[in-house]
Amino acid sequence: MDLPARVVVQEVGPRDGLQNEPVTVETADKLALVRTLAEAGLSRIEATSFVSPHWIPQLADAGDVASRLPHLSGVEYGALVPNARGLARALAHPAVGTVAVFVSASETHNRRNLNRSVAETLRRYEDVVPAARRAGRRVRGYISTVWGCPWEGDVDLKRALDIARELRRQGVDELSLGDTVGVGTPRQTDRICAEFLKNFPAKVLALHLHDTRGTALANALVGLQAGIGIFDASVGGMGGCPYAPGAAGNLATEDLVYMLHGMGIDTGIDLGRLVEAGRLASRLVGRELPGRYLRAALAGASAGPP
Amino acid sequence: MDLPARVVVQEVGPRDGLQNEPVTVETADKLALVRTLAEAGLSRIEATSFVSPHWIPQLADAGDVASRLPHLSGVEYGALVPNARGLARALAHPAVGTVAVFVSASETHNRRNLNRSVAETLRRYEDVVPAARRAGRRVRGYISTVWGCPWEGDVDLKRALDIARELRRQGVDELSLGDTVGVGTPRQTDRICAEFLKNFPAKVLALHLHDTRGTALANALVGLQAGIGIFDASVGGMGGCPYAPGAAGNLATEDLVYMLHGMGIDTGIDLGRLVEAGRLASRLVGRELPGRYLRAALAGASAGPP
Repeated sequence: MDLPARVVVQEVGPRDGLQNEPVTVETADKLALVRTLAEAGLSRIEATSFVSPHWIPQLADAGDVASRLPHLSGVEYGALVPNARGLARALAHPAVGTVAVFVSASETHNRRNLNRSVAETLRRYEDVVPAARRAGRRVRGYISTVWGCPWEGDVDLKRALDIARELRRQGVDELSLGDTVGVGTPRQTDRICAEFLKNFPAKVLALHLHDTRGTALANALVGLQAGIGIFDASVGGMGGCPYAPGAAGNLATEDLVYMLHGMGIDTGIDLGRLVEAGRLASRLVGRELPGRYLRAALAGASAGPP
Repeated sequence: MDLPARVVVQEVGPRDGLQNEPVTVETADKLALVRTLAEAGLSRIEATSFVSPHWIPQLADAGDVASRLPHLSGVEYGALVPNARGLARALAHPAVGTVAVFVSASETHNRRNLNRSVAETLRRYEDVVPAARRAGRRVRGYISTVWGCPWEGDVDLKRALDIARELRRQGVDELSLGDTVGVGTPRQTDRICAEFLKNFPAKVLALHLHDTRGTALANALVGLQAGIGIFDASVGGMGGCPYAPGAAGNLATEDLVYMLHGMGIDTGIDLGRLVEAGRLASRLVGRELPGRYLRAALAGASAGPP
């Protein structure tokens, strides 16, 4: 099995996780979670989103979070920015080293999510992306629904590739390819990775997998085998699927890290401390989180045998 | 990706699932579940276990279940037999086409599970296996803790291979290799499959994966790629881990089938009807089952997009 020696785990729980939880967590608690994640060794943490509080009330304290992020060396914080206004808010906070723009590969999902067309969304990023880079920020570009759309079904891979090329042309540093609704299966993931790797260097590609139908970790394995070295994940699998309330959300960080470490792949993360972050996340959102490894660890199973 | 065109799914929920659930399900309800699974297209259903009711009270009605199994063409029922006495009980029921013996690759786990050594366990099967075959039954041999033992930790693969050879010598038709405590990761699974496939034809090998740490489906994918064509699974992921109450149990049948179908692999199973079996199983054990696909389906997500 041909696998990378090291993988970068991009923690998205405080943003993608919390924005899909029904409860609103206190700012101080969010910051405690971010700190616990950083202390577990997560070197990239997406902390919040500068979208309108009208759309995502759970992250209405984005400015507060960003201004109070713990200063820890080797940790890079990120925040979503949907437009120039969001970027301006993000740039007020030196701690936000990465800003992320987002667009869907499916027209319908993009309109429902952003209230505008894909073309118009990309046009607006023509101002946002270069401005972010001029301000010294790294820019991530999320492409959603690459594996499928809850409204359109199959999504033409060419659309995702065209969007990716446009984002790269604008200056996006890293593309995060999203199986937003968790419909992906391994053969499809293999095809998607192969096409993207034909068009872009591996180091600018990340996979953002959801576990709605249980396939996230199997898809991550396929991505690893294809040569992908950056994976998004959410502590405890926090979050959910807006299209199926009660279903699992993001790939759980602990499950991903357990698999990676079990294959001898370095992540820089301490799995035991990550479980503590999961315990805290579970307490903050007031429910048992779906991550398998976290549940086993909290139930008393050791990391592995004995 | 080199994958088989067809895979056999061995449903073990009514046995391995129910024996690890704290509640005892009524015999009639078990039979309704078995029927629903069969009607969903499961062609192999492990229905019960002829162990002492003292050890597994949940399956104390083994004889009743076996005598009332629905007559459905193309469905093969199985039952566990720990010894000659269990076999005698099983053979009283013509519907039980397959009997399964079980032994651990780890000495400590075997002693805790069967109260005797591995050698003594295998010695006792010298009577059981040929007698079952003379009675026209197919014989499965479960080898537990191949990926690791909750007490001993790592387990020498040579032990599992030796046990497998002995079981085959006795006449066992099919070997089911168990990651009993769900510690396996893909590189390890690849090595285990490679070693077994060097020593045995693929058609006699099955994988029995637990999802305690979230890796079951990724391990199944590795098994498929290695050439394994039979996978054990439990409806809804019913069951659990006796060493970590609250943790996930067997690989969920729906998650496995969703992945297989998504890769164009035929199983003969109707996923929509399988969800109905999962809904019933969940009602019978009185809890939300951990299977991801089942949860998403019950939460209103469609099978795939749209």
